[in-house]
Amino acid sequence: MSVTLAELAEIVGGKLKGDGILAIEGVCSLEHPKDRCIAFAESAGLIPKDGAARPAAVIITEHLSGSFADAIIAENPRLAFVQVIEHFLAQEPRPKPAVSPLASVSPKASLGSDVSVGEFAVVCAGASIGDGVRIDANCFIGESATIGAKTRLHPGVKVLERCVIGEHCIINAGTVIGAEGYGFVSTAEGHRKFPQLGRVVVGDDVEIGACCTIDRAALDETRIGRGCKIDNLVQIAHNVHVGEHTLIAAQCGIAGRARIGSWCVIGGQVGIQGGIEVGDRCVIAGQSGVFGSLPAGSKVSGYPAKPHQQAMRVLALTQKLPELTEKLKALEEELRELKRKGKGKS
Amino acid sequence: MSVTLAELAEIVGGKLKGDGILAIEGVCSLEHPKDRCIAFAESAGLIPKDGAARPAAVIITEHLSGSFADAIIAENPRLAFVQVIEHFLAQEPRPKPAVSPLASVSPKASLGSDVSVGEFAVVCAGASIGDGVRIDANCFIGESATIGAKTRLHPGVKVLERCVIGEHCIINAGTVIGAEGYGFVSTAEGHRKFPQLGRVVVGDDVEIGACCTIDRAALDETRIGRGCKIDNLVQIAHNVHVGEHTLIAAQCGIAGRARIGSWCVIGGQVGIQGGIEVGDRCVIAGQSGVFGSLPAGSKVSGYPAKPHQQAMRVLALTQKLPELTEKLKALEEELRELKRKGKGKS
Amino acid sequence: MSVTLAELAEIVGGKLKGDGILAIEGVCSLEHPKDRCIAFAESAGLIPKDGAARPAAVIITEHLSGSFADAIIAENPRLAFVQVIEHFLAQEPRPKPAVSPLASVSPKASLGSDVSVGEFAVVCAGASIGDGVRIDANCFIGESATIGAKTRLHPGVKVLERCVIGEHCIINAGTVIGAEGYGFVSTAEGHRKFPQLGRVVVGDDVEIGACCTIDRAALDETRIGRGCKIDNLVQIAHNVHVGEHTLIAAQCGIAGRARIGSWCVIGGQVGIQGGIEVGDRCVIAGQSGVFGSLPAGSKVSGYPAKPHQQAMRVLALTQKLPELTEKLKALEEELRELKRKGKGKS
Repeated sequence: MSVTLAELAEIVGGKLKGDGILAIEGVCSLEHPKDRCIAFAESAGLIPKDGAARPAAVIITEHLSGSFADAIIAENPRLAFVQVIEHFLAQEPRPKPAVSPLASVSPKASLGSDVSVGEFAVVCAGASIGDGVRIDANCFIGESATIGAKTRLHPGVKVLERCVIGEHCIINAGTVIGAEGYGFVSTAEGHRKFPQLGRVVVGDDVEIGACCTIDRAALDETRIGRGCKIDNLVQIAHNVHVGEHTLIAAQCGIAGRARIGSWCVIGGQVGIQGGIEVGDRCVIAGQSGVFGSLPAGSKVSGYPAKPHQQAMRVLALTQKLPELTEKLKALEEELRELKRKGKGKS
Repeated sequence: MSVTLAELAEIVGGKLKGDGILAIEGVCSLEHPKDRCIAFAESAGLIPKDGAARPAAVIITEHLSGSFADAIIAENPRLAFVQVIEHFLAQEPRPKPAVSPLASVSPKASLGSDVSVGEFAVVCAGASIGDGVRIDANCFIGESATIGAKTRLHPGVKVLERCVIGEHCIINAGTVIGAEGYGFVSTAEGHRKFPQLGRVVVGDDVEIGACCTIDRAALDETRIGRGCKIDNLVQIAHNVHVGEHTLIAAQCGIAGRARIGSWCVIGGQVGIQGGIEVGDRCVIAGQSGVFGSLPAGSKVSGYPAKPHQQAMRVLALTQKLPELTEKLKALEEELRELKRKGKGKS
Repeated sequence: MSVTLAELAEIVGGKLKGDGILAIEGVCSLEHPKDRCIAFAESAGLIPKDGAARPAAVIITEHLSGSFADAIIAENPRLAFVQVIEHFLAQEPRPKPAVSPLASVSPKASLGSDVSVGEFAVVCAGASIGDGVRIDANCFIGESATIGAKTRLHPGVKVLERCVIGEHCIINAGTVIGAEGYGFVSTAEGHRKFPQLGRVVVGDDVEIGACCTIDRAALDETRIGRGCKIDNLVQIAHNVHVGEHTLIAAQCGIAGRARIGSWCVIGGQVGIQGGIEVGDRCVIAGQSGVFGSLPAGSKVSGYPAKPHQQAMRVLALTQKLPELTEKLKALEEELRELKRKGKGKS
């Protein structure tokens, strides 16, 4: 199937440049251009040199468009490119939804319409599966868990008993929602388990990466707000609340009872201490250790995390410690000299 | 089912305050109180204000109990609350243990009494499963592996060949016990595999979080001592030994052949270098990098980990580097001035 | 089955010392010697004291061999030991390759000869499985994925659609190859998904640990070069390229589009920023944060990663900050005193 460049320009609300009836059959990257495919460019650095292979067309900003004969001019080429991909994906034939005869679906589970359940997946009693949900092979949906409409669980995802996943979510392979929180009462004989009776509630439009762990609350709920996007191998402990549209990069760990605001951006491998509050729209640089609450709009980095400008200044000066130490030594020497002379004089 | 407040007070060895025949039907948190439920309070900060919703009763220390009419006075309210939860859990009907007809259990495996095996779980030849073990769906128990009595494996846990899990353990979903250790002999042609022939031995009463990896030893054993509690996404490499009752928070990594003592407390995202020894009752703060052995009772933090007091002092002074640098500059200036004057005079 | 010490010496190309007809039946460690077994020793520290239990024989360097009557003298005892293990492993009876009747293998998948597929494993349509591949229980091989000859996938590995795994690879339990990369276009309404259409291509002789996540490219390919060895819980983001024979220790995270060279050694818990280039043969110490490109042959450590010598110097001086601060204070005092005296004089 193909679409003309002019049609694509209209779909993305962009401006056509060049040959409007050029047939486009798919997408590609600028680095690996393919015939009859369209790419996108956001910066001058990636534009192929003269003579280098080029895609059939590009989506690009006005001021970078000079060297392309056939293009769609767009303010946000990346967003326009996503719209083009979505257009092509919508054309693709989809497998008819079906419950595999090799799955184990409890007769006491409730399934909406157009649900897919893959091979060797388990849906337990009392589970409620919304319309259009796709549960891939080897998944496990525990008792009385809820999966919202149109959500997709990739192979091997586990949503344990009573947890709730919203609509239009994507959870990648191997992730565990609702494992037991890490709660103990220490005594002289050992650490006694604090039974974990709560659940996890994930809002709509959330994406969660592969091999993440989001623990159930001890009591009450662990919450992930709507629109959050969580990368791989992220740990979210019991009773944590994350607001809406917050981005959490790979391998972050958020300890128990922390409160994370909305629209935050949390870099990879960040650690956030239990019980603290991170306000809305905070930006936390990769590998930071956040040991105290942060007001809304904070931009922090480092260990322990400090306001980013300050942290950068301190880091730069830390690198100058050898110089600083030398200077101090020189000063001591000069002062000694000065005093010796002074004594000589007096 | 319900129990009176007086009965609960007796069960936990606490002192009754108020209405002894008050019927309690379950537990809740103070923040989200429920009718006919009991909560616990450890600090003044969480006690609801006048007029705010309250649970039917609380478990609380004497000196905080003033504003509650119906309460159980206990020295350790959290521990007493756990005992209450256990009382309620013990009343709950339990599913009759059963081996799912959809599981694959080798006829050459040995199963104790009252064993549960979930759908699509695999128990290989030579495996030995103790009485009352619960193996959830999609688990894998390798050849000649041993699972001790009353242990529970959540969905998708893998215990690979010849590994041994003790009694009364809990292993959360997705965890892998007995993957191949990371051992190679590097040559000019590449890294040649050092075959990993050992096993993992986990003691009794151990809890392990979700998506952890505990590797088998190259030769001999990787060991986790009785009573250890390990959080999610923790990596324990080949030939590591961990003592008893040690707590290891999420995303820690312990490299090959390290020896960790008993009753240690290891914070989240800590890295411990291979081959070193960490003594008993060490406390290692979150995100520390431990690059050398630690004597028993050490309290360390930072990168590289240092005694906590010292590390805190150094961190505080590091934050003052801008100030320090300014002072040094001022001193240099003054000294120059002084010398200039001195020269002028002489 | 057993082999004589003389035969083993010949197999490993070492020099026999002592009783050539000594029968050796297996391997053991020096710490836990077993009868009729051979161990290896690389350093004097591990050699058992007089009277302590010893293995039947050792593989050892010439200069350490003094206290052993029966030994194989080798330049690289560890490598020779690996050869001995391989000799014994080659004698062991192997289970006949078989596709479990409890597996789900699409009739549209292509299987080579001598393929094993375990219980409840899924091989989707269009998948291509090479000769001698072993796919363990609960694995998932997505549509049109390729698994090269002689590769082994441990239980629960997921290789998602269209991804390619080379020959002679080992992938440990729970690992996910080909999850969706973490790509979004942020708008005022939320973060819009950038569909992840690419794939992962893993070269020959690669080993990957347990519970790793290697994401598919947005477009194009995420690549792991031949001979790489990757430890547990490692995150490799979309569009990353890793060269050949690079070692990546546990819990590392490599962010999107980074380029990592060949023969690098990357310590545990390292974070590497997206888009940067790490040259060949770089050595990155554990827990480093690499925020900028590194030329080939760099040796770096710390946060942010700096040349190792410099980083060590700075760290050492940082520890001396209390002393430095004291010195500065003393200097200020002295200077004040000097000026006071100077004024007194004038």
